[in-house]
Amino acid sequence: MANPSLLILAGDGIGPEVMDEVKRIIGWFGDKRGVSFDVSEDLVGGAAYDKHGVPLHDDTMAKAQEVDAVLLGAVGGPKYDDLDFSVKPERGLLRLRKEMDLFANLRPAQCFDALADFSSLKKELVAGLDIMIVRELTSGVYFGEPRGIHMEDNMRVGINTQRYTEAEIERGARAAFELAMKRDKRLCSMEKANVMESGILWRDVVTEVHADYPEVELSHMYADNGAMQLVRAPKQFDVIYTDNLFGDILSDCAAMLTGSLGMLPSASLGVPMENGRPKAMYEPVHGSAPDITGQGKANPIACILSFAMALRYSFDMGGEADRLEAAIEAVLADGARTGDLMGPEGGTPLSTTEMGDVILAAL
Amino acid sequence: MANPSLLILAGDGIGPEVMDEVKRIIGWFGDKRGVSFDVSEDLVGGAAYDKHGVPLHDDTMAKAQEVDAVLLGAVGGPKYDDLDFSVKPERGLLRLRKEMDLFANLRPAQCFDALADFSSLKKELVAGLDIMIVRELTSGVYFGEPRGIHMEDNMRVGINTQRYTEAEIERGARAAFELAMKRDKRLCSMEKANVMESGILWRDVVTEVHADYPEVELSHMYADNGAMQLVRAPKQFDVIYTDNLFGDILSDCAAMLTGSLGMLPSASLGVPMENGRPKAMYEPVHGSAPDITGQGKANPIACILSFAMALRYSFDMGGEADRLEAAIEAVLADGARTGDLMGPEGGTPLSTTEMGDVILAAL
Ligand SMILES: CC(C)[C@H](C(=O)O)[C@@H](O)C(=O)O
Ligand SMILES: CC(C)[C@H](C(=O)O)[C@@H](O)C(=O)O
Repeated sequence: MANPSLLILAGDGIGPEVMDEVKRIIGWFGDKRGVSFDVSEDLVGGAAYDKHGVPLHDDTMAKAQEVDAVLLGAVGGPKYDDLDFSVKPERGLLRLRKEMDLFANLRPAQCFDALADFSSLKKELVAGLDIMIVRELTSGVYFGEPRGIHMEDNMRVGINTQRYTEAEIERGARAAFELAMKRDKRLCSMEKANVMESGILWRDVVTEVHADYPEVELSHMYADNGAMQLVRAPKQFDVIYTDNLFGDILSDCAAMLTGSLGMLPSASLGVPMENGRPKAMYEPVHGSAPDITGQGKANPIACILSFAMALRYSFDMGGEADRLEAAIEAVLADGARTGDLMGPEGGTPLSTTEMGDVILAAL
Repeated sequence: MANPSLLILAGDGIGPEVMDEVKRIIGWFGDKRGVSFDVSEDLVGGAAYDKHGVPLHDDTMAKAQEVDAVLLGAVGGPKYDDLDFSVKPERGLLRLRKEMDLFANLRPAQCFDALADFSSLKKELVAGLDIMIVRELTSGVYFGEPRGIHMEDNMRVGINTQRYTEAEIERGARAAFELAMKRDKRLCSMEKANVMESGILWRDVVTEVHADYPEVELSHMYADNGAMQLVRAPKQFDVIYTDNLFGDILSDCAAMLTGSLGMLPSASLGVPMENGRPKAMYEPVHGSAPDITGQGKANPIACILSFAMALRYSFDMGGEADRLEAAIEAVLADGARTGDLMGPEGGTPLSTTEMGDVILAAL
């Protein structure tokens, strides 16, 4: 049987640096665990724009559709800030999400015991935190039409459209309920049904899907209250399901609660392909971090944990994912720290490569 | 000259209880400071629905248009959860905002020294916090058309429209720049210009208005990063300007950082009336709190501080507002606490009326 295939799109900024460490991890799995991948690489974001004048070349898009999973680094940077909206680095990422139809964006917000002090929240409120946010990723105001800026009575008017069909809400809800079944069986759905009709439909459809998952305890919360509750007492949540825009904000808020953005992976999953595997893209939650690019300072863990999510969700290798995650927990417990994880007590941080070294050693 | 006029809409849940304390404070200003108001009262929200079948009667709307300022308590409660969207308690509030054209919603997130321990954030990150969020309140996805739920190919589709004209963005921006001029002269504008064209227009217009306020340092941030930065290091902000929906979420997030929702007031300001005063409504940030309604447990301070904002923004009585705020700081420093402000060390909380008593005594 052919090896599973991976397309690496390292992207911009620290993307290539952190992805280098992932490649070493992939190599280790091939050498030591007999888990080999066919790996190809290509450009996305500003890197693709520099070469092709577009943030994602059609050939790259076609490749992404064919592989078993895409690993993405990060996109964007100040160099591209003034580009036209249609060719900004982000459009490459959004095109991948939309054309691969990656509707379920899984964003775990987990606080590692060794790092609980890094949170801006009091330690006892975040130690042991383990939330899974499921964000709908292919619809809503990100893609709704009509959109744009036009003139009306000699005045500019900016328009975007929030649009959700019941099928879109439903498939994401199923993904969220399935995850809840494997976890603590609690799902909280967030919208603004008190203000938006699309939120009313959201609430109704999630409630209907609930009938198929009676074991899961379902609650509903307005998104503004959701933001408050995340800050007040984040451990009250197990799985959260919300739309593309609320999910963007609430998952970033939840990520920051853990205090270590350099640690957080994500998975974006679509419908099953012929081989039964879902279309999938994995990426760290952090951005391209232009301020530290090229200095060997970046923390590769979020990107490595994204690969662990690929092992779990694309390749049904939960055991191997556990092994990789355990190695990371072990080096953290041992005191291994990149610059972003240095406390006030100081010390010498590990470089990106050195962090890769200790993780490989722990494996 | 006629006394300035106030319309009190106490609303639902704890609204009437906390408003009772405000009425005593208003009485004190009349008796002791010669600052008298013509006060009338009416219904809003569920209370209005119970009597009239609508959450705001046309007569009440007409009165609100005529007075110098409206003081609102809170709306909503479980009793009204299953009402049709068009008559839900919130619609009364939204109608007031829209028809009075209250485009600038001022939401201070301030942390009182005596209460810094209540925050879920580490004390040093929030002690002395003093952010002013200016939220655009009459446009955006709250009011944009088309909206609703309709059938398409036998499937329900929910739609809302984010719509902003440059005039709408501009007038709110001016309010935000004016406030920044009176504070630390720093303004951060938040949108999702990387994803939404309405966000691009937002960023462009705010940048244009900046030309009239060169002394203010303007920055731009994506709203998801804004949520992160509020959690990570809230003191970096002075004034934040953002749209109706982002403002709803981000101001609640910021409010929760202070740890004491029962303390936070808000002002919603419109264009000047013939007498030069802006159309205005003042309300606490907290909700109707059905769980503690009728038990004398509610904290009246947010509502009293909303009246202080009325003194400052509607009646140009900054000195009287300072006096009232100082009295509240003094009783807090003295250890006066309602139930929501009790720490783990316990003690006997003050009732709503007792808190009113000590504030009156301090005045
Ligand atoms: C880069 C940007 C387009 C993207 C988004 O808004 O979805 C990012 O913030 C994210 O959350 O993945
Ligand atoms: C009650 C509700 C309609 C309202 C809003 O969404 O604006 C509230 O959350 C607020 O922030 O004042």
